[in-house]
Order: sequence, then structure tokens, then C-alpha cells
Amino acid sequence: MPQFNCVGIIAKQGDPERVRGTLRRLWSHLRARQLQVLLDAESAHLLGTAVGTALPLLELCTRCDLMVVVGGDGTLLHAARATAEHGVPLVGINLGRLGFLVDVSPRDIESALDPILAGEYQTDRRAMLSVRVIADDGLNRSYSALNDVVVHKWNTARMIEVEVEVDGVFVAAQRSDGLIIATPTGSTAYALSGGGPLVDPALDALLLVPICPHDLSNRPLVVPGDRCIRLRVRDLDQGHVQVTCDGQTDVQLPPRGWIEIQRHHHWAHLLHPRGHDHYHLLRAKLGWGGHHRSTPS
Amino acid sequence: MPQFNCVGIIAKQGDPERVRGTLRRLWSHLRARQLQVLLDAESAHLLGTAVGTALPLLELCTRCDLMVVVGGDGTLLHAARATAEHGVPLVGINLGRLGFLVDVSPRDIESALDPILAGEYQTDRRAMLSVRVIADDGLNRSYSALNDVVVHKWNTARMIEVEVEVDGVFVAAQRSDGLIIATPTGSTAYALSGGGPLVDPALDALLLVPICPHDLSNRPLVVPGDRCIRLRVRDLDQGHVQVTCDGQTDVQLPPRGWIEIQRHHHWAHLLHPRGHDHYHLLRAKLGWGGHHRSTPS
Amino acid sequence: MPQFNCVGIIAKQGDPERVRGTLRRLWSHLRARQLQVLLDAESAHLLGTAVGTALPLLELCTRCDLMVVVGGDGTLLHAARATAEHGVPLVGINLGRLGFLVDVSPRDIESALDPILAGEYQTDRRAMLSVRVIADDGLNRSYSALNDVVVHKWNTARMIEVEVEVDGVFVAAQRSDGLIIATPTGSTAYALSGGGPLVDPALDALLLVPICPHDLSNRPLVVPGDRCIRLRVRDLDQGHVQVTCDGQTDVQLPPRGWIEIQRHHHWAHLLHPRGHDHYHLLRAKLGWGGHHRSTPS
Amino acid sequence: MPQFNCVGIIAKQGDPERVRGTLRRLWSHLRARQLQVLLDAESAHLLGTAVGTALPLLELCTRCDLMVVVGGDGTLLHAARATAEHGVPLVGINLGRLGFLVDVSPRDIESALDPILAGEYQTDRRAMLSVRVIADDGLNRSYSALNDVVVHKWNTARMIEVEVEVDGVFVAAQRSDGLIIATPTGSTAYALSGGGPLVDPALDALLLVPICPHDLSNRPLVVPGDRCIRLRVRDLDQGHVQVTCDGQTDVQLPPRGWIEIQRHHHWAHLLHPRGHDHYHLLRAKLGWGGHHRSTPS
Repeated sequence: MPQFNCVGIIAKQGDPERVRGTLRRLWSHLRARQLQVLLDAESAHLLGTAVGTALPLLELCTRCDLMVVVGGDGTLLHAARATAEHGVPLVGINLGRLGFLVDVSPRDIESALDPILAGEYQTDRRAMLSVRVIADDGLNRSYSALNDVVVHKWNTARMIEVEVEVDGVFVAAQRSDGLIIATPTGSTAYALSGGGPLVDPALDALLLVPICPHDLSNRPLVVPGDRCIRLRVRDLDQGHVQVTCDGQTDVQLPPRGWIEIQRHHHWAHLLHPRGHDHYHLLRAKLGWGGHHRSTPS
Repeated sequence: MPQFNCVGIIAKQGDPERVRGTLRRLWSHLRARQLQVLLDAESAHLLGTAVGTALPLLELCTRCDLMVVVGGDGTLLHAARATAEHGVPLVGINLGRLGFLVDVSPRDIESALDPILAGEYQTDRRAMLSVRVIADDGLNRSYSALNDVVVHKWNTARMIEVEVEVDGVFVAAQRSDGLIIATPTGSTAYALSGGGPLVDPALDALLLVPICPHDLSNRPLVVPGDRCIRLRVRDLDQGHVQVTCDGQTDVQLPPRGWIEIQRHHHWAHLLHPRGHDHYHLLRAKLGWGGHHRSTPS
Repeated sequence: MPQFNCVGIIAKQGDPERVRGTLRRLWSHLRARQLQVLLDAESAHLLGTAVGTALPLLELCTRCDLMVVVGGDGTLLHAARATAEHGVPLVGINLGRLGFLVDVSPRDIESALDPILAGEYQTDRRAMLSVRVIADDGLNRSYSALNDVVVHKWNTARMIEVEVEVDGVFVAAQRSDGLIIATPTGSTAYALSGGGPLVDPALDALLLVPICPHDLSNRPLVVPGDRCIRLRVRDLDQGHVQVTCDGQTDVQLPPRGWIEIQRHHHWAHLLHPRGHDHYHLLRAKLGWGGHHRSTPS
Repeated sequence: MPQFNCVGIIAKQGDPERVRGTLRRLWSHLRARQLQVLLDAESAHLLGTAVGTALPLLELCTRCDLMVVVGGDGTLLHAARATAEHGVPLVGINLGRLGFLVDVSPRDIESALDPILAGEYQTDRRAMLSVRVIADDGLNRSYSALNDVVVHKWNTARMIEVEVEVDGVFVAAQRSDGLIIATPTGSTAYALSGGGPLVDPALDALLLVPICPHDLSNRPLVVPGDRCIRLRVRDLDQGHVQVTCDGQTDVQLPPRGWIEIQRHHHWAHLLHPRGHDHYHLLRAKLGWGGHHRSTPS
């Protein structure tokens, strides 16, 4: 009995030359397996008009029971935010360069996908974030993120001051270039550049990393994953703060507004070929064993 | 009905002048409250021979139902390792300088202790570590730690190479001066100097921090608290590795031995006066808001 | 014989309550010493119209042979950029909080200034930066800085890529939030938050500190002070880069423009009371000896 | 006219399999060029007894006018300390893995050495350190280092406290695992693991990097190269401190002794093939452009 009936495809935008070949092979292979194949409307352009059904991404998510992502980690982040609430699992095919999230090489499309289609895979459940940006008048809008929510200075060279509360407990009033709230998945992204630790994806935790903090003893902080993080920007910095989700969605903070970040009630479900090993991936991506300081031996 | 019947006292060694006055006030106050008071044998010296019953620390732990620690964080670490398996809760009185763990000021002994003795307190349960040092022939010894277990070079200026496995999964072969395995409590101790993050004490997690890693991309790692961390030292470094618990207990690694570290099945139970606030303590101890870089404003 | 004949005064803007009293005492004291006293036009407002001659800052710099700065380090940076080419030495009076650069306490105005006015002082010569922002058509504008020149992302959450050349030698194409080029003076400012080292003011060196670099092995770099640093931003990031001097002057990078930074041919001359000690100041400002991690002792 | 008449060879110890082939080719090639070739006595073993004249290293340094080093950076450090006072220039042949200092590939022995022997090379003058370990009774011994002098804890898990003076000015009493004093050359070695910056080899500077400092605001410090750094260890830590030069020479600190470190009055002279580029080497060794965090693009 087939595990999946309808497969959606979403591909990286802006790099048609590298995407097209992989997309064609993928499409042909899935069709040859008698699967219904739907394409994200923007990705369909890359294949030309003749092939299959193109749908807007949000509709695509309601129709397919597996989503194949062709691109880099950024494309997968985009897809994960769209599919999360529909529970559609994701497989990531990279474009020749291994990603932290997209781990199937285009060379191995057929050999890697067939077992997955037959139900032979590892499920890798990743926590996501839900962020509410709340205006003074109580109106609020919600966004989601798989890597991180960054509250950062905008249009200014000055520091901003952010008051941080965790479950209603005041933590600090931090002056910095901004604050990164990351999932374990996001611990290998922007948070890592800010000096944050690596966090095992199985740990239910949120990571707070200040960006260039003014106070030398301000350090990254790891808190339980069920906490609600509330951030307020002091008045002086109003109009100079932006909220960015996964480095992709920018939201202006309304005057006297504040921000609440919690673990999302949906998860991203990544599917990997059997034998996937998170730490093997980390070693490869971070080059452990490769580049290091001089040694006197 | 009294909450506690028998109170043990353990005091910092090596600083009798500062300890004695506090110890006397504490002893008198507890006696005035009709409590049985027992003293750690080494601490009893500080009070002179006349006062009360002195017992070896391990026996003391089996007899008292509350332990008052007079000293610094180091004294509390020592007491916590001794009391953990008996489930005796701890109150820490500092010697005039606030600690991360000993938070009652000697000025406030009476006013802070009375409510605690009456059952008015906050319980602060802290995870501990259990470390087994296992020899080639299968013999092993176990130790405990509240802050951290450090596997570090000894008697050598050279790096050591440590293979790290988490629940049987290979993580890395790290070349460094050593590796710190810390609880959330220990995240404010040695691990912080090594570049590790602060970890909320309520998070069930273990922290791995390499000391001066050779590989520039080696970074602190946070894993779920139920993981078993296995460390092996490569042959070349045999005889040049020591295992240290809480900076206090040194253990030589036997030839071809290895090390297993897990969360301890006992916890340390710290009692705080009502109103205790972990993040308030962090701000005070780390000086947030105080010392920072120059600003152009 | 008097050391100085005409003293200029410049005060911090935006905090009139705290400035006014100090300004009055300073003005009276200098007048009582028979000195000609000129005021920066914006500072004169704070004293009311009756007192002395107010001049635009640039003209003030041509007239006085000593400039007294009342405010914080930011006010001194502002004054230093204005006075540098006229060689006017600077004395900094802080507003009750010790600065890295303004080290005379308002309590000590009279006792600290009198010896300085009599020629009893330490001269502290500080290197400055000259930055040229060069447009595609060859037009360029120059700016100066005492602390740092920062080339950073603007109006975007994305990284920028900056190509760094030192004296015509390619160093790196860095992807980051930006790059800080700092003097030794600036090593205690923004560069310190970015992970840069402290640099002794007597060392003739320039400091390059990447902000949240994408590459984990990218590190702060210190080069000889006579080097010319050329920075180019890749095409994709055009329009998303700003150049900021001392955190105070913002310059838009013209399309396809580039940036050249060198040590300025003028220096800032800070005058300190005898006994001034740079490392004493560092210890006080950075809180060495005060706030630290937990210790097991 | 030949540039060099007598070439000395020193090879890495402890890895005869990898060294021997390179050593033979090198020896044959130099002999074919009619040069007198002398071997370090320990290296001569690797070639067997038949080949040429073997001398103790110190005597070799007085006889040859060029030293070829076969090995890694560690072998070159060893050779540099021996040759410095004789002014013998050094060429480094690596063993298949590029070093920061040994940059000629064994594949290119002939093509890289011939121009150098003919006088076609770049001279790369590197500052060295001179360290005096001074006992209470005034007796002292001196050592040299090309990378660094490390004053570190020994036989203890406890921090040590080191008082740092620069040219007689008190800088700090640092509690840490130790302190690294490095040359610009050493900035890519141990100091880099301790969080120090990269320092351009042309900059006349000394680098002080605390190892796991207790104080969170303690940071690496860069001072002018002509400074004298004096280090004293507090009494409590007597007997628990070692001084290590280049990670290779260990010296016990005598009771109540102290340490003085200055730039050596001799320099190491590295010869490189024309076209050598320090920053190219840095990029290759540190893997810039290769391993980095996740990006959402």
C-alpha cells in the first residue's frame, strides 16, 4: 500500500539554471511511480507550462501528503512555515551543496526517494516558533518560524534596548543590536554567528542570543521550550526595530507594540533516508577536523 | 507542627575568622527554636568543643532533615554531593558576598531562617551529574557533581583528544585542553568561562563545553538531560588526563579507561526564602547593567 | 606664563538638567581665572543668553587653544572630530559617570582643571581614522572618526558581503552583518561587543572586527596602523549598506562605491590630570575583579 | 654566485615513514646542486648512516647558512628557536599538509627550492619572544619562543591568579587557567583557541590572551611590541604553575619566582617562494569561505 498519494514540489526561486534539471528528474521519477504530482505555482514556471498542476503554495499544502523541497535550507524554511499547520512532511533535495536541512543529494534522487515513498524513512520532528506582534490597541498578528525570530535595530546605527521576560519573570533589559530567539534547528543558523551554542534538535528548548550586547557579561541563554518570551522595546527606539522570521519575513514593530514568542503548536516533520545522522551532518557542515589553529606538534 | 526537627550545619573550611561569628549566631538561633542541631565534625572545630554534637558529614546526612551551609558556593557544592542521596534539603548562608547558590545574607539569618523553618520557602530542585570512571578491566567508580564534570589535560602542555558519544551516537573527536560537562547549575561556573551559554535551571539539559578547542568551529553543545555522554581519551594522551567534579574532586583516568556521565537519579534541593528570583540573582552576580563597553551617545 | 588663553566649551545635548549646573561652575571658574571663554553655540543655550560668546563649533575650534568637553564619551567623540585638524587639545568632564575618555569628575572641576591650565597634565595622543567614501564616478567625500568606522547592513535582515583589502592585498570576502574598523581607542567601544580585543592606545594599529560573521573561523584582525583598508560591497547588497563614523555620522554608500580607511594625519590630543592611568580606567569601567562566574572555592 | 653554501636539514621526529622519502629527495637534490649538506643528528638517523655529516642541532646552526625544515609547524618552531641567534634563515617543507609556517609542498621540493637557492625568495621576518624566569634569589634562566609563552596551571583543577604588569604599569590580577603571551606569529596558534585576534606578522605587537578567565569582562589585550610584560603568581598558587614555550619547552616556576617576557632581540627569518601571500595562507588554513552556519537564502 503506498505511503503517499499526492506529492507536492516546491523549488528555490532565483536560480533557474541549477534548479531546472533536478526538478525535471524529480517530476519524471514521481510520475513514473504513479503518484499525483502537484507543483507550487512559482516553481511550475521553471518546468514550463506543460507539466502537471500548478497551485498556490497554501492550496498545495492542503492537497499533498508529502512535500519535496528542491533548493537550499532557505527554501525548506519557507516550505516548513507553509506546511506546518497541515502536518505535511518534508523531504529536502539540495542543489549540490549539502544543507543543514536539505540532505538528499540531487545525484541520489531516485535511490533516496524510493525507500521514502515506500515508507522507509526517519522522521525528524522539529519545533517551530510562533510569534505574535501585538500593537498598543490590542490588535495582533502572528507569524511562524522554523529557525529563529530576530528582533533587531532597523534604519539606525544605534543600539536598541529590549526588555526580556520569560513566563512573566523579568530577565534583563539588554542593550544590543538585537536579540535572536531560536529553536534548536535555528541554533546552527544566525544564533551561531552571535555566539550561541549548538542545541540538539531533540531538546525542548528555546535559545536567546543577544547580538553584539553592550554589556560584556550578557550571554546566550537557554530556557525550557514551553516558556513564553515577551520582548518590549523602550520608547526611544520606537520606529527603529524590525522583527524578522527565518531571515525571510520582515515585520515592522508597531509603536508601543510588543512581541510574544512561544513554541508553535505545530511541528515541522522532516523525512530523511534511513541512516541519517544529525551529528554526521554537523561535522560535515561545520568542518570539524578540518580547519583549525596552528599546532606546535 | 514543625517542618524540620533536626538541622545539620556545615561550614566553609580554611577561613575561620569570617565563619565563626556567623556559625555562632546560627547555632544559637536554631537552639533557641528548640531544634536539634548537629554539626559537621570539621565545622564543629570552629565553634569550640562545647557546642553540640559533631558528626562526620556522611553520618550527619543520615540524621538531619535540613542542612544549613555557611560559606560560599563551593561549600554548598560539597554539601550537595554529600546530601543528595539522602534527600536532605539545603539552605545556603553566604559569608557576606552573594553566591549563585548561597543566597541568604548573614545579616538576615534570623529573619530569613524562621519562615523557612516554618515551612515558608521556595524549593529549587537542581539536577546533578553522576559520573562513572570505568577501567579497562570493567571495574568502575562513581562520583557525583552539582556543577560540572571536567575531563582535562594534566601534567602536560599538549592538547588532549577526546571522543564524544551521546547515547551511543558519535558526536566528535575534539582536540582541546579538555571538555566540561555541566548541569544548568554549572552553566554559571567554569562552563561560562569556556564560552558556554547560561541555562535555565528548570531545563532538563546537559551542557558540553570544549576548553580552548583546536577546531575553531567547535562550539558548546546542549543536549537533553536524559542522555548518556561517553568520553574516551585517545591512547597517546593516556596518563595526561584527569577527571574533576565540581572543581573539588580529582580522579585519575585509568589506562584505557573511559568515562560515562549522566544526570544523577538524585537531585539537590535548595530552599530559598520566598521571593527568591533566579534572574534577579543572575543580574546581580553578572553585573548586568553595570560594566559595559564605551558608547558614543 | 599662562599655558592657555582661550578656552572653548562644548556640552552634551539632550540632557539640559544634568549639564547646566556643571556648565555654570565651569564657566565661572574659567572666567575667574581671567581666561577668555567661548561656547559652542548649541551649548550656550543651556547657560542662557547672558554668558559670553557663542560660536558655531567649527569656528570655535579655530579660536580656542583648549576645549573642555562636558558630557559623556559621545560628546568627546563629537568634539574630537571637530578639533582634530586644528590641534586643539581636549579635556573631558563627565556627568557623574566615569567614561573611557571623559575622566574628570564634575566634583573635581576646580581642583582638576587648575593644574591643567597651569601646564600640569598628561598628554594622551590618540590616533583617528580618515574614511573616504568613493563613488563610481570618482567623486568622494571624507569623514573622520576617533573610535570606529562601521560598514553595516541597512534596511535589510540579510547579510552583506564585504571584500577586504589591506594595502592592496586581498584579505577576505566576508559575509556578516558588517565590519568594524576601529582605532585602539575604539577597541573599548563597539568592537568590544563584536568580540574584538582591547588594544593599548600607544600601539599604532587598526582593528578589523566582523559583526556576526557567517564563517565561524572569521576572527578579529589587527594590522599595522599605516595600512590602507579598502572595502567593497558586492553588487547584490548595493543600497543595503551604510557607513557610520563613531556611531554618530551615517553615510549612504553610493551605488558601486567603495570605502577607503586610513589612520588620519591628525590626532586627537586628550589632556588628563597627572596620575591618569589607562589601565586603572579599564579596570574600573570593565569591572575587573567584580563580576564573574561561580567558583567552587 | 651562489646565495648559500652550506644547507642544514632538520626533520620532524616521531614519524619516520612520512619523513624519509621527502628527506632523501631533499638531500639528493641539494647535493646535486653542489651544496654542502649537513644534517641534524636526530634527523640523520632517518636517512641511515651513509649520508653526509650529522651534527648536534646547536652546532649545525653555527655551520649552515640556510636551514631546511621538513615537518610541520612544530618542527619549524623548534628549528627557529635554535637558529634565531645565528641569523640562519629557514625554509619549511610540510609533510603533505600545509602549515601556517611550512608552506612548501613536498611535491614541489625541486621547483620551489631552486629559485630560493638562487636568491629568488621573499623574506618573512618574524618577531620572537624572550622569557626570563626569575627566582627569588635573583637567579634567572632565559628561553625563547616564536609562537607563545604560556603561564598556566599545572597539576591542579583550580584557577591561578596572575598579576600582569606592562612596562611597570599594573594591568590586572587575572584569575584564569593561565595566560598566553603571543607574537603575531603565535596569534594563529593557541591564542586563537583562547579567543584572541589574528595579528598581522608585520605589526610590532604582543598579544595577551587569558585562558578561560574567571572575570567575564577580561579580554585579549594587544600592546606595543617593545613592552616588557611581567607576570607574578600569587603565593597560594606556588607550585601549581608551569611556563611553556611554543607548547614544547616546559619550565617549572620557582617558588616566589616571576616571569618577564619581551620581544627577542633576534628574529626568525622565514624564506618563502616568490608569490607567497600570508592572507592566502590564512584563508586556506582557516577555511574561510568553506564552513559556516546555516543561511536562510
